[in-house]
Amino acid sequence: MAMHEFQIIQSYFTLPTLRADLGVGDDCALFRVAQGHQCAVTSDMLVSGRHFFWDVDARSLGHKALAVNLSDLAAMGAEPLGFTLSLALPAVSEAWLAGFSGGLLDLAREFHCDLIGGDTTKSAASFENNGLVINITAFGQVPIGAAVRRDGAQVGDDVWVSGVLGDAARALVLLQREQSGDVLGVVEAEALLALRPRLERPTPRVALGMALRGVASSMLDLSDGFAGDVRHVLRASNVDVEIDCDVLPLSSTLKNLNLGQQCPIWHTWRDALTGGDDYELCFTSSPTQRDVLAELSSRAAVPLTRIGCVIERAGDAPNVRWCSENSPEGLMHMREWRGYNHFS
Amino acid sequence: MAMHEFQIIQSYFTLPTLRADLGVGDDCALFRVAQGHQCAVTSDMLVSGRHFFWDVDARSLGHKALAVNLSDLAAMGAEPLGFTLSLALPAVSEAWLAGFSGGLLDLAREFHCDLIGGDTTKSAASFENNGLVINITAFGQVPIGAAVRRDGAQVGDDVWVSGVLGDAARALVLLQREQSGDVLGVVEAEALLALRPRLERPTPRVALGMALRGVASSMLDLSDGFAGDVRHVLRASNVDVEIDCDVLPLSSTLKNLNLGQQCPIWHTWRDALTGGDDYELCFTSSPTQRDVLAELSSRAAVPLTRIGCVIERAGDAPNVRWCSENSPEGLMHMREWRGYNHFS
Repeated sequence: MAMHEFQIIQSYFTLPTLRADLGVGDDCALFRVAQGHQCAVTSDMLVSGRHFFWDVDARSLGHKALAVNLSDLAAMGAEPLGFTLSLALPAVSEAWLAGFSGGLLDLAREFHCDLIGGDTTKSAASFENNGLVINITAFGQVPIGAAVRRDGAQVGDDVWVSGVLGDAARALVLLQREQSGDVLGVVEAEALLALRPRLERPTPRVALGMALRGVASSMLDLSDGFAGDVRHVLRASNVDVEIDCDVLPLSSTLKNLNLGQQCPIWHTWRDALTGGDDYELCFTSSPTQRDVLAELSSRAAVPLTRIGCVIERAGDAPNVRWCSENSPEGLMHMREWRGYNHFS
Repeated sequence: MAMHEFQIIQSYFTLPTLRADLGVGDDCALFRVAQGHQCAVTSDMLVSGRHFFWDVDARSLGHKALAVNLSDLAAMGAEPLGFTLSLALPAVSEAWLAGFSGGLLDLAREFHCDLIGGDTTKSAASFENNGLVINITAFGQVPIGAAVRRDGAQVGDDVWVSGVLGDAARALVLLQREQSGDVLGVVEAEALLALRPRLERPTPRVALGMALRGVASSMLDLSDGFAGDVRHVLRASNVDVEIDCDVLPLSSTLKNLNLGQQCPIWHTWRDALTGGDDYELCFTSSPTQRDVLAELSSRAAVPLTRIGCVIERAGDAPNVRWCSENSPEGLMHMREWRGYNHFS
């Protein structure tokens, strides 16, 4: 790499701060949390060859690296304030840096979230072999006591999800097949075009998350697949849930893709429930809030679907009771589903 | 790696928080910044094979990974509150994890600084080849307007440093020689024993940094060597400095090591001024504060040395005027010194 660390930071990652008191360039950045508010903080590390393909579009990668952190802030009901960025960089071009910082900072501007600091270092490991490491730590603010945690689900609450599920996971499967040399059919290639932005450019549900303060009793964002992720809420809240698979929000693209399969509905559920990268919000709330949620959904222009309800804990371990009246054959295929395990 | 991500976090990185409202285990952590305070944030990424040797003691590594961030907080005069930890892990043993988290959390407890979140992921790159990546983002608080920045140095101010300089850099040189197969002489081997803790277990000057609020006009911590680091202050404050090399704080171990060299003083200055990893504070303050600083030094039990003064900017670029009455031959060897460049 020809560029010096300070040049890279100066050229691609330094810009005036909108909200922070002091941004990149001192020992620390400085920002304020509004009076009566708590600071919410989250941190995600993305590693090349593990969390993304080595040849992913740099602009998309910059977008996604920040989006997954803003999604965590959204899942607490927090308002984004700023973030730090650390990069371990194998040899990359200035075109790559321009694309990456462009995607990152466009999203940052959209959410009035300042890049306020970080670190840049050279990596000798190759891009393909986990050599590019991106760590973002994002900060937000939320009124004291108003953060929506995982431990507030009550028996009798509804279970809701935003958007549609499974599109990103299916895009990943199709991309992996392409990478391994498979030639996709026409239908699949068209589907990949439609689904790919859901994998590479997720939209963090920030406004929705903030609007759910005081409405949702518990919340998290779906990053590793609903079936695994929802168990974090069950564990923290000491409850179970019953999920009606017949009403899962699914895109027509995803449903059509599975029509050729034996038991298509089960393949679709598998994508929707065990795939990762949805970055939708999953939350519980009292049935008395249904009208509020209908209005809130239309205001935020994000579809909300009621997919089940919170029930009493039956055994020692958290359990999801999967239900379906329309497709009982799909249920036959189900076993204990779990989300993506980073160490499996 | 046999352990699951959640097991690793649960076993080694989860503990009750002392100050934060919510620690590890939700989408975000939550903490409060005292009324009338700003939040100070800093982030450092350490990469194996680049920032530390692959066979470094895990406990020391855990200590240092946090210490370098606390040093950045100290350099703003901020009081530590908490930190997030992200790890990309090649295959490591449970003994390694126990050592690393032990060193990390011992230091965290010492400074009442909570581990409140983070991320853990597997890395396929080898330990030697940049496969272990540690990113810590640390938060602190400082009364609004009281943070000591780099841009406040005034012509006529004194220039001060804490502790002694160059020990860590010299320990690194000796370790690198050992790694490359050199057998150290008795004097060098003894010196390495004495100097090594300064490289591997730096002490962040947190209490000193906080005490310097309202006393220091500018401040930073020395991580890449005084000669390079001080230029950040010169650039931000638009001044130059004159440094009296005769009064640089040097350990007797370091001075003795260079006695055999041609022009020993110059070798010692080179260690002290261009080596990295000191993690001492460098600050400027008005000459009217000298009595205050003498008391403050004895209260914090950290030696402070006045090594020069701030002078008017002479040219376009920041400049350090090196002076010596006792060893003019040392000055002859000096050229334009710069700190460690991560991309050189």
